[in-house]
Amino acid sequence: MTYCCGILVRDGLVMIADTRTNAGLDNVSTFRKLHVFEEPGRHVLALSTAGNLSISQAVISTLQEGLDNPETGLKDTLSTCTSMFRATQLVGRAVRHVYDLYGEALKDADLRFDVSFLFGGQVNGGRMRLFMIYAAGNFIECTSDTPFLQIGEHKYGKPVLDRSITFETDLYDALKSGLISMDSTMRSNLGVGMPIDVLMARRDAGQAELNFRVEAGEPYFHDLRERWSAALRAAHTSIPRPPYGR
Amino acid sequence: MTYCCGILVRDGLVMIADTRTNAGLDNVSTFRKLHVFEEPGRHVLALSTAGNLSISQAVISTLQEGLDNPETGLKDTLSTCTSMFRATQLVGRAVRHVYDLYGEALKDADLRFDVSFLFGGQVNGGRMRLFMIYAAGNFIECTSDTPFLQIGEHKYGKPVLDRSITFETDLYDALKSGLISMDSTMRSNLGVGMPIDVLMARRDAGQAELNFRVEAGEPYFHDLRERWSAALRAAHTSIPRPPYGR
Repeated sequence: MTYCCGILVRDGLVMIADTRTNAGLDNVSTFRKLHVFEEPGRHVLALSTAGNLSISQAVISTLQEGLDNPETGLKDTLSTCTSMFRATQLVGRAVRHVYDLYGEALKDADLRFDVSFLFGGQVNGGRMRLFMIYAAGNFIECTSDTPFLQIGEHKYGKPVLDRSITFETDLYDALKSGLISMDSTMRSNLGVGMPIDVLMARRDAGQAELNFRVEAGEPYFHDLRERWSAALRAAHTSIPRPPYGR
Repeated sequence: MTYCCGILVRDGLVMIADTRTNAGLDNVSTFRKLHVFEEPGRHVLALSTAGNLSISQAVISTLQEGLDNPETGLKDTLSTCTSMFRATQLVGRAVRHVYDLYGEALKDADLRFDVSFLFGGQVNGGRMRLFMIYAAGNFIECTSDTPFLQIGEHKYGKPVLDRSITFETDLYDALKSGLISMDSTMRSNLGVGMPIDVLMARRDAGQAELNFRVEAGEPYFHDLRERWSAALRAAHTSIPRPPYGR
């Protein structure tokens, strides 16, 4: 399993992803699912992946190699895209390219072409945006009404985000909420696990403010988990018992 | 959708179920999903249902009419079962009976025989037990290691239970946690909704201590939702912002 969330607030973007993968229940590994593409001053882009690892890795490699542009005869890469919208379309094209290569063979093996992405960032000083890209290469955009998107095992960590994130949330508060959301998910699903990769980019900064791996035992995250547990226990205790039937 | 949870602690049993059903997204109704069978002094039993409403209602009606017992020539009902285990087996037989009647026709209509149950209670002063019954009529039992079971849309409300419920939890605290879990689920999934049915039975009491419907706007539940939200906001605020990258 996987859990990734992307949060887009007024001040900027937060992307968080776990690193646990499993092929069946007994083959568990650590793979990076948050990929950062950065050219300071030009673009900062973060792509997080869920689903079949062979597909998502092939999409990443395809983006790195570039896709043929029949009109120009050149390669389209994230570095040639002039806007977030075009960059997102390029990721979608890479997904369809991988589908064309492996989709039929996967179907023959009774495997779904199962992959999804969060893709956020800013290109050439344009609008900072966050998208969710589906297996068909189509995508939706995060808006200020619901300023976060999730892929993978999203349900355990959604209540935390539903309650805490608005478009006006401070960037570091958004990161904190994302980490609490990740903690809730890891507690309820063993398929989501440490370490956690974090990308934070402030709007118009032109480069990442934070590109960080939270390892197991990292003091702040450990403290956050303890404090959150204690606060939830205290919240429970502070609510009176139901008066029903008395 | 549906959300039901059953909690079995040392002091007794709590069962909570929402009442929202939908056929498609635009046909939303209210139906009772928590069914209580009580003969004070003999048994108190609660059966909550998730899945296809026509199947779960047919199972309830089958239990009310009784199932033929080829050995005795009589009808087996919940009132003739001498233990929780036999009562649970009877529910399983009722599920298979309904499957025999409609399973093939559902398959022809490309519909899965989708149903599951939580079934808890106490019979004849025997052990108080809680089971989850599957569509094949097989079942698992709740144990003190993880003293709750859930059916339906279970993920949103699981972190709350994971953190708050142990076998030693007070019965009214278990009810409170179950209601918070229901609140979390309702906030994140519109397919789960008010009113909420609640059954609470104290071990060896021989009858339900509480058999109650929480209507929208009921003061305690309204207050619980407000307090829980406020406590979560306070918990968020009390945790320091991440020091990363500073």
